[in-house]
Amino acid sequence: MFSKSKMALRAFALIAMVAGSTYAVSSNAAEKTSDTTIFSEKELQTAAWLRDAARADNASYRILESLTTEVGPRLAGSPADARAVAWAEAKFKELGFDKVWKEPVSFPTWQRGIEKAEIIAPFPQPLLVTALGNSVATPADGLSAELVQFASLKELMSAAPDSVKGKIVFINHKMQNASEYGAVQAGRTKGASEAARKGAVAIIIRSVGTDSHRFPHTGVMNYDDGVSKIPAAAMSNSDADMVVRMLKRGKPVTVKLQLSSAAASTYTSYNVIGEITGSELPNEYVLIGGHLDSWDLGTGAIDDGAGCAITMAAAEFIKRHGLKPKRSIRVVLFANEEQGLFGGKAYAQAHEKQLAAIQAASEADSGQGPVTQMSSFVRPEAFGIVKQMHNVLAPLGIAAGGNNAYPGPDMGGLRALGVASFGLTLKTDDYFDLHHTPDDTFDKIEPARINQATAAYTVFAWMAANSPIGFGSGAEYLKAIKQ
Amino acid sequence: MFSKSKMALRAFALIAMVAGSTYAVSSNAAEKTSDTTIFSEKELQTAAWLRDAARADNASYRILESLTTEVGPRLAGSPADARAVAWAEAKFKELGFDKVWKEPVSFPTWQRGIEKAEIIAPFPQPLLVTALGNSVATPADGLSAELVQFASLKELMSAAPDSVKGKIVFINHKMQNASEYGAVQAGRTKGASEAARKGAVAIIIRSVGTDSHRFPHTGVMNYDDGVSKIPAAAMSNSDADMVVRMLKRGKPVTVKLQLSSAAASTYTSYNVIGEITGSELPNEYVLIGGHLDSWDLGTGAIDDGAGCAITMAAAEFIKRHGLKPKRSIRVVLFANEEQGLFGGKAYAQAHEKQLAAIQAASEADSGQGPVTQMSSFVRPEAFGIVKQMHNVLAPLGIAAGGNNAYPGPDMGGLRALGVASFGLTLKTDDYFDLHHTPDDTFDKIEPARINQATAAYTVFAWMAANSPIGFGSGAEYLKAIKQ
Repeated sequence: MFSKSKMALRAFALIAMVAGSTYAVSSNAAEKTSDTTIFSEKELQTAAWLRDAARADNASYRILESLTTEVGPRLAGSPADARAVAWAEAKFKELGFDKVWKEPVSFPTWQRGIEKAEIIAPFPQPLLVTALGNSVATPADGLSAELVQFASLKELMSAAPDSVKGKIVFINHKMQNASEYGAVQAGRTKGASEAARKGAVAIIIRSVGTDSHRFPHTGVMNYDDGVSKIPAAAMSNSDADMVVRMLKRGKPVTVKLQLSSAAASTYTSYNVIGEITGSELPNEYVLIGGHLDSWDLGTGAIDDGAGCAITMAAAEFIKRHGLKPKRSIRVVLFANEEQGLFGGKAYAQAHEKQLAAIQAASEADSGQGPVTQMSSFVRPEAFGIVKQMHNVLAPLGIAAGGNNAYPGPDMGGLRALGVASFGLTLKTDDYFDLHHTPDDTFDKIEPARINQATAAYTVFAWMAANSPIGFGSGAEYLKAIKQ
Repeated sequence: MFSKSKMALRAFALIAMVAGSTYAVSSNAAEKTSDTTIFSEKELQTAAWLRDAARADNASYRILESLTTEVGPRLAGSPADARAVAWAEAKFKELGFDKVWKEPVSFPTWQRGIEKAEIIAPFPQPLLVTALGNSVATPADGLSAELVQFASLKELMSAAPDSVKGKIVFINHKMQNASEYGAVQAGRTKGASEAARKGAVAIIIRSVGTDSHRFPHTGVMNYDDGVSKIPAAAMSNSDADMVVRMLKRGKPVTVKLQLSSAAASTYTSYNVIGEITGSELPNEYVLIGGHLDSWDLGTGAIDDGAGCAITMAAAEFIKRHGLKPKRSIRVVLFANEEQGLFGGKAYAQAHEKQLAAIQAASEADSGQGPVTQMSSFVRPEAFGIVKQMHNVLAPLGIAAGGNNAYPGPDMGGLRALGVASFGLTLKTDDYFDLHHTPDDTFDKIEPARINQATAAYTVFAWMAANSPIGFGSGAEYLKAIKQ
């Protein structure tokens, strides 16, 4: 490990020489210290003031109130998508951002339609289900078949086709906590094609969620090419518990499922961008944001209205108080994250030639906060700055993480291209209770939580924008750390 | 107060002489004490053993699991009503009750149908609503009108008709805790006719419930004679919060409401009754039970599957352990409580000539427990017995209440006729979160809670059945305490 980081150090020294002004320190950046690669005491005092003042502010709470009340659900490609884009443009302007613009994002759309299910035998009763995003419809009158239960996608994958053929697959994979999201979500995204390969007629998964309320959780699923497309839905955890009890009685359980969901035409939405322009290095920028789209069932308060509001408020707080960041702070509200990271991919593609302009990237997309940890993904020369950031954030209860940060779903593509990144870990204790359900609404937001997260993003954005040295974005960095 | 109770004492002495054997003490009832009007030490030991053993049992949990899994929702008059009756008969027999029978209960039925609402202006978004029981339909395409908000039914009643005419009334009465149920529920039951009198076209209330989830709570409403019937619905607390925020912006809020609910034909269901027959006074009985019907949205786990299961298990526990109650223990699972106490009224009517046969009545209809208090409504001669009951129950954390008990909705009519009653107060901390919503499901039941409640009912049923003296049911008692 040591030799690797020595190599990285050498590589960065080279990059720094080549890149020149990208890592330049402004003349007055370190008034009271001789070390010009870290913040001065005075600058740290400003950051600490920002932290405390932003925490006592509640602009993010008000922005999120506005979004959930004046727009509400905003499924990508639906009429609400355009209303959300208009809201975002207007809100950025109202908040006094220096520049506001849109960048187009095109994608195929999907509509939900009717979603109904019921147990027909042996004990008739309704099931509360929701269609998974991208699911095809059932026949108009629905389809009926026996349920076959699997504990997980993995168990389905190893099942004999005979046990599945002609049946509705029920993946009963209960998500216990946030750390299991990836593993459990695999059943949602890949289950339909796995089931179809073995001859299943439909799939209904246990919702990917940690709650025990009667809300089915939606979320995107994908069909593999060349495999027949079967309808895919999720039932609530409460319903899944009941189905498990019924199956334990040893009689075949027959379910009728009716979905009228359908793919629709291509739609062009927008990444909506607001910028506070930098005073010294305006063409370099700190990239923060969230995704503007939400699923249609709730009003997207925690997913991801909160991320939009936190990052909009962080940049706005700096501007409102007359502080001038040296680099620009760019807030991107991404289009259509939910159905396939379309906004993030479009942003990366549109800006792939200017990666070195991105000082650091960090998306907020895990709820209302608080932030519990900050990790980085920067060149080693910036470790001193990162340590100073950790010190300023520590009074918020934010732990210091390592140097392998993930900047969030819409910025993951940028990181893969070598963009310096930060991960501000949001506490997800309630996130997967509400995630992708009708219950994702503004009344769940606690001002103290979202204000802390906003304070953390304010500090991050300000210190990253004002860092005396660059964090090292670009292909060279990536190449260096991959050696 | 003193003179009143002296009068009551005289009245009871008279009743006791007239009634004769009703208040007789069996010859071996008080083996080790000279006072034959209270329990002997040995009998108290039996009661204490029952308390502890029943608490360690989990039959009520299993019974409720069976009801919610094998029947599920059981709206009165729906096909599930008959399935619930068949389940109840079979379950009583399976549990070894000595006698099982049904008594007919007829009532008008109501069907839910489509229920949809959305805000059309100024900020379009869907509302999650449910029709209130008995509501008429809207026109097939729905109706649209401006919302007019009132803080409570009382505020609506004092409003000028001009402010209401042509509008949809929104009663925004937030229920903070269980004690407010009666006051807030009045808006649900009476709001439609009050609104219609002033010319409203529909009413949508804030749900009568203490949760902040996206579940609208249904519940019965009634139309006054001679007033036009307007559609009535409830929106979830989360939706109501959002509507309030939208109304604060000062622009008219227009809502489209679509309900296809409708009254349907008369249906005859049954009170299903199981009895453990008394060994000495078989024609006298302790009356316990719950209501078998539920609303259709959930599976009626807490309302009132729990009450059915607790009381069935209490009687069954005594029988299973070979204990022979002196009086009979009768468990009644009432038909159609939710839409107008039809089962309770039918029971009172069918048995009004034999009220003195009822040693005591106590329904369980407030959830899964635990029982926090026991109050009584008995003649003063029985106060010694009640005190002994309190002493046996105290280790369960059950406080001693006064002598003005309410025996529950289906037994309220019996109490009004003078039937001795007990109130075993069930803790309602979660009850009005789940009540009348899709979320009223078995996964919310905690064994420790329902087992404690079952132990309390076991002790109550046993001690009431074996009391050396009668508790004083009948018109004479009522007359006496009313003097």
